Amino acid sequence: MTFSFARRIQHAPASFLGELFRVSADPSIISFAGGLPSSTLIDAEGLSDAARDVFATDPRTALQYSTTDGYLPLREYIAARYRRRLGVPATAGEIQITNGSQQCLDLFAKIFLNAGDRLGMERPGYLGAIEAFSLYEPVFETVRLDSEGPDPGVFEKMLMETPVKFFYGIPNSQNPSGCTYSPERRREIAGILDGTDTVFYEDDAFGELFFDGKARLPLKRFLPNRSVISGSFSKITAPGMRIGWMYAPQEILTAFNTAKQAADLHSNFLCQQILHRYLTTHDLDAHIQKIVAVYGRQCRLMCDLFDDLMPALSHTTPEGGMFLTATLPAGLHAMKVFDEGVRQKVAVLPGMPFFVDGGGTDTIRLNFSNADEKKINEGMHRLAGVIKGLS
Amino acid sequence: MTFSFARRIQHAPASFLGELFRVSADPSIISFAGGLPSSTLIDAEGLSDAARDVFATDPRTALQYSTTDGYLPLREYIAARYRRRLGVPATAGEIQITNGSQQCLDLFAKIFLNAGDRLGMERPGYLGAIEAFSLYEPVFETVRLDSEGPDPGVFEKMLMETPVKFFYGIPNSQNPSGCTYSPERRREIAGILDGTDTVFYEDDAFGELFFDGKARLPLKRFLPNRSVISGSFSKITAPGMRIGWMYAPQEILTAFNTAKQAADLHSNFLCQQILHRYLTTHDLDAHIQKIVAVYGRQCRLMCDLFDDLMPALSHTTPEGGMFLTATLPAGLHAMKVFDEGVRQKVAVLPGMPFFVDGGGTDTIRLNFSNADEKKINEGMHRLAGVIKGLS
Repeated sequence: MTFSFARRIQHAPASFLGELFRVSADPSIISFAGGLPSSTLIDAEGLSDAARDVFATDPRTALQYSTTDGYLPLREYIAARYRRRLGVPATAGEIQITNGSQQCLDLFAKIFLNAGDRLGMERPGYLGAIEAFSLYEPVFETVRLDSEGPDPGVFEKMLMETPVKFFYGIPNSQNPSGCTYSPERRREIAGILDGTDTVFYEDDAFGELFFDGKARLPLKRFLPNRSVISGSFSKITAPGMRIGWMYAPQEILTAFNTAKQAADLHSNFLCQQILHRYLTTHDLDAHIQKIVAVYGRQCRLMCDLFDDLMPALSHTTPEGGMFLTATLPAGLHAMKVFDEGVRQKVAVLPGMPFFVDGGGTDTIRLNFSNADEKKINEGMHRLAGVIKGLS
Repeated sequence: MTFSFARRIQHAPASFLGELFRVSADPSIISFAGGLPSSTLIDAEGLSDAARDVFATDPRTALQYSTTDGYLPLREYIAARYRRRLGVPATAGEIQITNGSQQCLDLFAKIFLNAGDRLGMERPGYLGAIEAFSLYEPVFETVRLDSEGPDPGVFEKMLMETPVKFFYGIPNSQNPSGCTYSPERRREIAGILDGTDTVFYEDDAFGELFFDGKARLPLKRFLPNRSVISGSFSKITAPGMRIGWMYAPQEILTAFNTAKQAADLHSNFLCQQILHRYLTTHDLDAHIQKIVAVYGRQCRLMCDLFDDLMPALSHTTPEGGMFLTATLPAGLHAMKVFDEGVRQKVAVLPGMPFFVDGGGTDTIRLNFSNADEKKINEGMHRLAGVIKGLS
């Protein structure tokens, strides 16, 4: 190495996301490895109309610098939707616009973590979060997920030791497992946290994507003052605009805003305006219904094909979201399935990047949002061939 | 404080940028305090056409997730422009798209700085950089600027002590001073750095805005392997799209890309495509000529009015950019000028946020890009009244 980089970047975990985009770029490969929403379900026409409106109204304001917190009418829209959907008393003053919810991970870690601080995560945990948090050199504590959420015994034990700055979780259709916390487990986890100094960070990228169309109660309902929620338009409108948000108590948001300003002044203002125009002139709920109908069908198809073609594998059965996790037969390593899969033109994501402790070698994550039913059918048959050949 | 935040955010310098936006929002105040390019010089029509083209061509790709490094044709455009304008052998592989050049400050500091590491800056130095760097808890070393650039003696002395990770400077129309390094000083500073482990970080936000239309040689010409340049479309196209870039040797860019991915996956892809479409269907050079003609006139007017109305103040005479700095008469504090100025409806920026050592109390920064000649005339008369009243 020619340059003396910071410790944090020398120890950064090797990233799989770059790999994924490369695999996605080969059209002969059917990829379940990525994390893209369906391109065909992006309302390009509606967003085009919204863009035309913004350019026809006051484009020089939309193209100029703006405030760090974000476009106020968009923040008001987000707050009103929280009040209506989840029954939490959100106000625009508690919402900070970010570059997708990935930026929430970075900035939240930045304001909370000194090197060596402890944070809690699910096991397996979202790899984008592991990448973002790792750069602040924390100590990761993990709590295994069962079918109802984080194991309460392990969770409680974690908190009894030295302080944990925050616990990061995805209660709705977790990535990578597809697990949704049960209502009882939400109350239980909130109860364990109540009275401690640990903040609950609820990543809610998928809360709008339940196949039954019903919202689940956020942990914030039980922990109003010690929890935050991050959200994103990437899965319900369009990821390429990079618009997400953090919903947090004022004291956290003030620090978060300082970090946001230092990071990039503010998020793309043109797209904040286009998005707001789109949201107020189109029926988002109807659009989301379309999305979940398709994802629900694709998820069921994928689960059925697992059961029919690969009975030696167990898999989760998601209630929503975009991902499920399958467990491989004993002795079969996920990297073998990845490598052989790519050769046979089907890509799945090995589980290891979701584990901070070297685990996950017997699991693979599959995305069911981006490939249509025809491709899922063909890809799962290819995968069954791969598994058969390796067993 | 209810939450136990990280040390870095507890010690973050109080920000002036928020103040500035608030002052800018009062239409009765003529503000020279902000840092906005002229809204009237944003080519809204051209960008609107470009947006329409993007939405008419392949909108679902523009609205989908994309790669962390950025839109390849845009990176190729930037590299080609460097080769043509500055005679540096840039390739697209050395360019990473960011959210304005502010994000370059954050990510560069993130990959280089451990807490307690030393970095060098100009004195005065850009406040956005001070804010970004501070969050990585470095030790700031400053080198005073004279009319030709950083003082070479101080610069050399700084490097003779413990290692300095990088020196951050703005050789072209520095913010806040308006100073441009002389050709001789560039060679001299590069010569001092040659053979050391210190990287030169050239923030080139203003290099396209010289009133004489001529490019200045970047330090990268003399330090090809140990320097980086950050750039931005904010001043030559539109800030609201938040598109900037880092141009760096491959080894640095690889680490930078890891940090970028962890920070927000990638920059707004829709706007990268709109911007590229705009740049390849419009004459950017002709547009920049229009901008510098206006800024040059406004700068001269402001300097002339200082000389005519406030002879007790000295001021810099920029060759380009958007800012100049004035030095107040002995005993007059910049905060007094700010406070009394706001009362009399003219805002200037006190110098203190540009100094990491408590200096700057006798300086004010003025922006000449955002107010037109009529407003500059009126605002400078108001300022003269303020100065007179306080003297």
